[in-house]
Amino acid sequence: MHRTLSRDLPQRAGTNIKLEGWVHRRRQLAGVSFLIVRDRTGLAQVVAPAGTELPGEETVVEVTGRAVANPVAPGGVEVVEPDVRVLGEAEPPPVELFRPALDAALPTLLDHAAVTLRHPSRRTVFQAAAAAMGAFRSTLNGAGFTEIATPKIVASATESGANVFAIDYFGRPAYLAQSPQFYKQTMVGVFERVFEVGPVFRAEPHDTSRHLAAYTSLDAELGFIEDHRDVMAVLTDVVRAMVTAVSPYGFPGVLVPAALPVVHFADALHLLGADPDEPDLAPEHERALGEWALKEHGSDFVFVEGYPMAKRPFYTHPQPSDPRWSNSFDLIFRGVELVTGGQRRHRYADYLAALAARGEPAAPYETYLEAFRHGMPPHGGFAIGLERFLARLSGAGNVRETTLFPRDLHRLTP
Amino acid sequence: MHRTLSRDLPQRAGTNIKLEGWVHRRRQLAGVSFLIVRDRTGLAQVVAPAGTELPGEETVVEVTGRAVANPVAPGGVEVVEPDVRVLGEAEPPPVELFRPALDAALPTLLDHAAVTLRHPSRRTVFQAAAAAMGAFRSTLNGAGFTEIATPKIVASATESGANVFAIDYFGRPAYLAQSPQFYKQTMVGVFERVFEVGPVFRAEPHDTSRHLAAYTSLDAELGFIEDHRDVMAVLTDVVRAMVTAVSPYGFPGVLVPAALPVVHFADALHLLGADPDEPDLAPEHERALGEWALKEHGSDFVFVEGYPMAKRPFYTHPQPSDPRWSNSFDLIFRGVELVTGGQRRHRYADYLAALAARGEPAAPYETYLEAFRHGMPPHGGFAIGLERFLARLSGAGNVRETTLFPRDLHRLTP
Repeated sequence: MHRTLSRDLPQRAGTNIKLEGWVHRRRQLAGVSFLIVRDRTGLAQVVAPAGTELPGEETVVEVTGRAVANPVAPGGVEVVEPDVRVLGEAEPPPVELFRPALDAALPTLLDHAAVTLRHPSRRTVFQAAAAAMGAFRSTLNGAGFTEIATPKIVASATESGANVFAIDYFGRPAYLAQSPQFYKQTMVGVFERVFEVGPVFRAEPHDTSRHLAAYTSLDAELGFIEDHRDVMAVLTDVVRAMVTAVSPYGFPGVLVPAALPVVHFADALHLLGADPDEPDLAPEHERALGEWALKEHGSDFVFVEGYPMAKRPFYTHPQPSDPRWSNSFDLIFRGVELVTGGQRRHRYADYLAALAARGEPAAPYETYLEAFRHGMPPHGGFAIGLERFLARLSGAGNVRETTLFPRDLHRLTP
Repeated sequence: MHRTLSRDLPQRAGTNIKLEGWVHRRRQLAGVSFLIVRDRTGLAQVVAPAGTELPGEETVVEVTGRAVANPVAPGGVEVVEPDVRVLGEAEPPPVELFRPALDAALPTLLDHAAVTLRHPSRRTVFQAAAAAMGAFRSTLNGAGFTEIATPKIVASATESGANVFAIDYFGRPAYLAQSPQFYKQTMVGVFERVFEVGPVFRAEPHDTSRHLAAYTSLDAELGFIEDHRDVMAVLTDVVRAMVTAVSPYGFPGVLVPAALPVVHFADALHLLGADPDEPDLAPEHERALGEWALKEHGSDFVFVEGYPMAKRPFYTHPQPSDPRWSNSFDLIFRGVELVTGGQRRHRYADYLAALAARGEPAAPYETYLEAFRHGMPPHGGFAIGLERFLARLSGAGNVRETTLFPRDLHRLTP
């Protein structure tokens, strides 16, 4: 007999069916015994005569029986006259998974992730993650982007120098890539529009609720732009698609107006009543801007553009009308920075000048700069932190709650 | 004016258009000057009066002009009366990109990858790679799989012990993951069917044409199977979709019959006239099986199932009818192993016994084994090497030709 998934059970009333899944809950009452069977699509109720020997929670079972209508069962249909076969034995789990809400502290949830992720409230977060990655890719594929896979082991800790993981590479020093930034830029020279979904590594020495030592970065880069506004337009489409894709997994109602509000960095400081010489936005500034965007524009997102050149990496393109500012932006989602992006420099001479102005030698960047030496178009891009998107979306206070197996200063297992 | 891509030029004859791209070739003849402009979709011919000053190869240009029919131009249409604006200057590239075939040795191609990948013959390989990844995902998404992102930094070098890269993890030893094997198995307990496309790391000390220190692994794992044949059925669908997806990029005609041929390991040795006690297939065996499959079954693919348990990892499920053999398989593509997969053990007690039989302590596997302790269904999966698929597909003699930026014993840049 073919397997019936729990979500399809309502359509099978009156027929013989086979369920497969985990015993989510066993209840043996005086007059009747119940199993709630959990599969990847939901829960199904199985009813057996009192005294039937039934396996305990988390046992993997195959249940054959008859599907019958019962208005009080989940989905209005339950399984009766069951024949229960054990496919995989189970000891009781470290946390009671049958409770509507998991009653355990975060370290316990993470230490036993392979089991606690089975709880529907945990599972849906990562089903939403999968949907978000899918929406990111399908939006960009539809816009002529090409997916690339760039190296995660690199020869020099170039982009920021600090916070890199060192590795022993056949006896030579090497580093884990902090981002695909340089590669995605040079690949604009090949494919014009590229994206990558992959791990990035930061040896983040601070133990905060919003930083991880490794996370999933959704990176995109595109050529033949006018300026950063073209990049923001693509990002807006991507974010809208991601929000739509996660909605069925219990995260509806994210506010994405037709045009996302945009504030220049200088105007943002003014709006916030902050010192006009502030070089960056503090977390409380981002929070206040999020509230402003929600109140004034009915938007969960707000772009801040024009960040001071002094605080942005050397590849950042200056704002042509005033080179104190840059053609870069952040996208703030519900009061927290979610995306960083902008237009990049594209002329070889500009790169040499920018590095010289910062007192940095060009030699370590040689293979990166080669692309610019041999012709690159105006281009820009952005990077979205997947786990941070999910944390803001789900209201999780800690980005570890939206990572399957987080890695941080203290955590290297499971 | 909106940009016209070179592939759309034939539909624009008789109109004013704007092209953007790279100068693929400049030819200044006595009577006329030509530019061939390259963009991500192809080449377009631009004709200017003799004596017109035109930029050199790899300069990034915007060309406005009139599209007119010309039967001898690529696509039957060329651009006349051009106004050429330089968007990005270029020095002459290290390799002549305008030649139909790249005339450079592999090390040169790889050393200057950011530029040499621009050549259409190189670019299409990686457009095919993107299409293959997309087909892998869409096939599995359509079959109820969930995409996961698992850790690339792990605490112990468990799966094989050898060939791992060590990293300094905040002063503690850690390792780069050789595969997502353990994580994808435990995530069957959460999502039932999972996949991941991501980097895997092998400190491969041998300098061969088919091994890399890092490659892209297309991993899948599914629960509630009867045995490895259910896994092979999913893999067959995936491979068929990948082959279809890469076809438009210059790789047509891959032979994938309705049912792929399957040979048991013992029968394969017999067929090859090899010693029946051989514990594994040598490269020349795989080659011979590939020829046999092509000749006897009109197939570029052949499954070998039942590999001896002695040569397979401890999580491999034995063949129930004869536990000398396993429920594992390889898929051979044009005479080279492309995929390894099989049914895995799913009972906690079986894992403890399998580790004990190999004299291995269970403690390093504790967080992996926790999933089995608390109920896992019969399951199995497979892993496809993306670069190797592309190498066999394109006839490349070396897997470095089908990797954007390969990493090996000697190569850590670009």
